[in-house]
Amino acid sequence: MNDAVTTDSRALPMPDLRDSFPGPFEVSAYADDIERHAGRWLRTFPLVGSERALSALSQITGQGVARTFPTAERDDLFLCADLFLWLTAFDDAHGEATGARDPALLARTIGDFVHLLAGHDEPPGSAGAFTAALRDLLGRFRERATPLQYLRLTAHVRDNLFGILWEAHHVHRPDHITMPDYRAMRPHTVFVRTVIAMAEVVLGYELRESDRALEPVRELQTAVADLAGWINDLASYAKETAHGGAGTLNLPALLMREHDCDTEEAFRLASRMCEERAAVAAARIVELSAGGGPLSDHAGALKSVASSYVWHIHHSRYRT
Amino acid sequence: MNDAVTTDSRALPMPDLRDSFPGPFEVSAYADDIERHAGRWLRTFPLVGSERALSALSQITGQGVARTFPTAERDDLFLCADLFLWLTAFDDAHGEATGARDPALLARTIGDFVHLLAGHDEPPGSAGAFTAALRDLLGRFRERATPLQYLRLTAHVRDNLFGILWEAHHVHRPDHITMPDYRAMRPHTVFVRTVIAMAEVVLGYELRESDRALEPVRELQTAVADLAGWINDLASYAKETAHGGAGTLNLPALLMREHDCDTEEAFRLASRMCEERAAVAAARIVELSAGGGPLSDHAGALKSVASSYVWHIHHSRYRT
Repeated sequence: MNDAVTTDSRALPMPDLRDSFPGPFEVSAYADDIERHAGRWLRTFPLVGSERALSALSQITGQGVARTFPTAERDDLFLCADLFLWLTAFDDAHGEATGARDPALLARTIGDFVHLLAGHDEPPGSAGAFTAALRDLLGRFRERATPLQYLRLTAHVRDNLFGILWEAHHVHRPDHITMPDYRAMRPHTVFVRTVIAMAEVVLGYELRESDRALEPVRELQTAVADLAGWINDLASYAKETAHGGAGTLNLPALLMREHDCDTEEAFRLASRMCEERAAVAAARIVELSAGGGPLSDHAGALKSVASSYVWHIHHSRYRT
Repeated sequence: MNDAVTTDSRALPMPDLRDSFPGPFEVSAYADDIERHAGRWLRTFPLVGSERALSALSQITGQGVARTFPTAERDDLFLCADLFLWLTAFDDAHGEATGARDPALLARTIGDFVHLLAGHDEPPGSAGAFTAALRDLLGRFRERATPLQYLRLTAHVRDNLFGILWEAHHVHRPDHITMPDYRAMRPHTVFVRTVIAMAEVVLGYELRESDRALEPVRELQTAVADLAGWINDLASYAKETAHGGAGTLNLPALLMREHDCDTEEAFRLASRMCEERAAVAAARIVELSAGGGPLSDHAGALKSVASSYVWHIHHSRYRT
């Protein structure tokens, strides 16, 4: 670890989200089951290199998903967990610094997944563990989701994969990324739109398309999407900078460049931005919860999705 | 033009598709209207650099779309034409050799489109003509298509954009691409899955999901998708090699490497592959047309989609 580039994020200003998301956050009774299932799934599809990493990823995914959808059924929680494991493990193994070293190789690997996502079962070029695991996931989602839900979900998974490739291109060239570029792409690299799309699948409600287009719904989703990415940036800042290179494509780094300020001031600004987004989300959740029906279900889902990201701030995955 | 690397494709063996797609191919009475509309749309959204290129692109798009969906209404034909113009102009301006020079820039540009495709109206980073034109297109598709059709279409547009980026990474490194890689990705770079997805929108039928999963339907679509890409490769070979570099990522070049053979033999092999795919498609079209209903409509749509690509073989865009 290079102390010259490492900042202890625990000493930096962090957002205070207690007004908007006071907690305690509801947790599914299946949290430990999910964690055990995650361990089994990662042994069936070896996406993670070491037993230690497997155990850590199973733990945070189990606990995280149990907070994302605390009222969901066990099998649905397993399905969500597996998709999240797949995305996270792929990003860890092939994205970030590895992807930055050879983006063309990353594009070829993603090409196999695009083939499966586009609905083609014939084996693509490679037959690696990630391909096999994605095929397993898509089959289970096809059984569980309506055609609309399936298409929405697989569209967002494409966006996640594109986001990973986009990030690999810019980890070492963050100066090419403007704040609007970053704000547009960050929700995809943190997978939050995919998590939101899963809510309808696992909680058994379906928004009407006219509801989906309502301004309060759109604003709520955007606020939660922003919040998820920014919280993740702040929480993982120390870890990312410790590994070198990857620490420059995140909200504090962009703010430092934009405002010509130091890390502490950037964290202060970023914290205020998080608090503002959390307040917007919380107000929209109250508003949409009032009417009942699918809109109310959706508001409840977004509340727990946001809560699970808020919970992540303090998780040890992000302590160096 | 460098004669040393240019091959006159007119002298090479080409597929004989008359048994499977005998023609004459039905043409919409609106062909000239589409061409005029395309010219107007490209003046509203300046996606093409020169008046000469604008005129050539409007002409082939007008004539091509008039053969793709000969029975469609005028406004639907305009919508199809505009999407095809957008994809083709984007590939010409930002993909291929330009994309290969700076794939990271291409990824950033595509990032703006992913933002719009994911359903977010807030202006992304750039406000260029391609972004404005895509916004126009998506608004019109949203009005015209069912939610399922819209999601299917926008998923395939994502695949097209990913394909353009994938191609940019490999134009100068074609040796990294295996035949299965190529077969998986080529339908996306020729936009044919997107065209197939448009059929239901503009011809007013809707396949049931259970029909979509039928083996004859899947095989028909895959055969037409293969055929479209391979025909395009053969027809554009001379043009592509004349421009240098881009001519190495196509079916003849892959076959030359795989079989260690010369251009003529590669064209002979490729032609046989096209004829085989055309025969499969034609047989499935006959089979699916027999029963009436949406399956029959779909078979008819695939027939005219395939015919429009067959027609392209002899179009002057692909003569150097």
